[in-house]
Amino acid sequence: MSSREKSLTETLRLPAGPVDLSAHAADDTPGFGGSKNDGKDALADLEDPLSELQERLFAEGVSGGRRSLLLVLQGMDTSGKGGVMRHAAGLVDPQGLHINAFKAPTEEERGHDFLWRISKELPPAGKIGIFDRSHYEDVLIARVRALVPLERIDLRYDAINDFEKRLVDEGTVVVKCMLHISPEKQLERLLERLDSPEKHWKYNPGDVDERALWPSYRDAYELMLERCNTDDAPWLLVPADRKWYRNWAVATVLHEALEGMKLKWPEADFDVDTERQRLTELKL
Amino acid sequence: MSSREKSLTETLRLPAGPVDLSAHAADDTPGFGGSKNDGKDALADLEDPLSELQERLFAEGVSGGRRSLLLVLQGMDTSGKGGVMRHAAGLVDPQGLHINAFKAPTEEERGHDFLWRISKELPPAGKIGIFDRSHYEDVLIARVRALVPLERIDLRYDAINDFEKRLVDEGTVVVKCMLHISPEKQLERLLERLDSPEKHWKYNPGDVDERALWPSYRDAYELMLERCNTDDAPWLLVPADRKWYRNWAVATVLHEALEGMKLKWPEADFDVDTERQRLTELKL
Repeated sequence: MSSREKSLTETLRLPAGPVDLSAHAADDTPGFGGSKNDGKDALADLEDPLSELQERLFAEGVSGGRRSLLLVLQGMDTSGKGGVMRHAAGLVDPQGLHINAFKAPTEEERGHDFLWRISKELPPAGKIGIFDRSHYEDVLIARVRALVPLERIDLRYDAINDFEKRLVDEGTVVVKCMLHISPEKQLERLLERLDSPEKHWKYNPGDVDERALWPSYRDAYELMLERCNTDDAPWLLVPADRKWYRNWAVATVLHEALEGMKLKWPEADFDVDTERQRLTELKL
Repeated sequence: MSSREKSLTETLRLPAGPVDLSAHAADDTPGFGGSKNDGKDALADLEDPLSELQERLFAEGVSGGRRSLLLVLQGMDTSGKGGVMRHAAGLVDPQGLHINAFKAPTEEERGHDFLWRISKELPPAGKIGIFDRSHYEDVLIARVRALVPLERIDLRYDAINDFEKRLVDEGTVVVKCMLHISPEKQLERLLERLDSPEKHWKYNPGDVDERALWPSYRDAYELMLERCNTDDAPWLLVPADRKWYRNWAVATVLHEALEGMKLKWPEADFDVDTERQRLTELKL
């Protein structure tokens, strides 16, 4: 089957069962046969179709529709969650986006259930929500750094699946992308941040401490990818060592998800001829 | 003085004193000598410099800086507030934007001071906030439709000036653009919405009722432009009958405002060599 017959979403979807990230090359470009320049052109070509579908979703939302889309981005430091937002999500009208970057929870947030702060940032009808990190941190850093007792973390996978199922049932399409980079590429990118004074602000000495925990994070990611890969909200594994591929891939699965919604322009809930007459007859 | 020597912000700033909107041609292109195609090219040329300044502001915000920028867009229906966001603000990374469209206040919002809901949507440090409509509706539609006793509305101009002064004092640069269209252009754009089925969702029969109040709105706008044109937060009048000029003009004053902030990349608060060593010595 050619890549045209199989959607990129199908290509990138992780099969059910245990996940071994080392079996997936992070510099691979599944579903794309061309060069880096071809990839950049293909991304630019998505601007118009993506923008139109986003506007149709927005139009549906202001016309009484209840649907929305949620793009969840997860990945190790430097995997490019921010880059994807800038280059892929940046293709559409920013008015149609609801972006949130989840940092360490505040004291108030820690006083609530872990999904409390997530729920507050869900996209309203008509919008594309994007999470830069998400509720998955509550089974990633929470597990790696033992922030929460293990038996509570173990309960969270099902809680997340139930939560996402409810979102889907209520009309949100959930697209989850794990940006998969190699530890070698992370080292390269962290060193780049040190070498360029205009990138120093992106560097945090704590990044090295997190990097030292790479094997624990990999295990936590593998477990999360296995346990929360549902038919309602499947996990897509996006190889992310090549920025151009990563950006094209996320824009493409976003496009496929919007296409799958079969969005139509809302029909007028007024009589067009009457309105034309009212307008032209009105004298100021 | 040529347009190069005078900034566009200075060119578009309303002089102090009473405002007569009919004295400003809505199809004028002050500060720009070229054609429509030149204008589109000039807008595209702003993408890179605008993006870099926006990123510097963002970097400052995550590095302990307190500054932000607030762009307030006002204008009659169809003047292009949404178009400006899509085409001018859409040039920069959407992660750096905090966009809010103010609709009719909710019951909860009406239970508070008129600036309550505005305050909640102010941009945090490092971000560019954009208001599609704003607290100025509380002296526009509120006056035209007599939603509030006149003596309370009269107090609001000073309240707004005090509010904006406080924002500026605390580190927010406030850029206020009135998108100025002619009633003839509005009629043309409303009819376009009726003629194109994919634009029906943008049309509301109530738009005709609002249009019938054009003279009252003009008076309310003129009063607001006179009374809230402060040195802290001056009003710029952007002729908006030509979409390409409007988009270029708002992107340009945004660029000038960011340039005026003299944004620098934050300096490292860590020792670069130590970090390079820690990174390269770490074995996974």
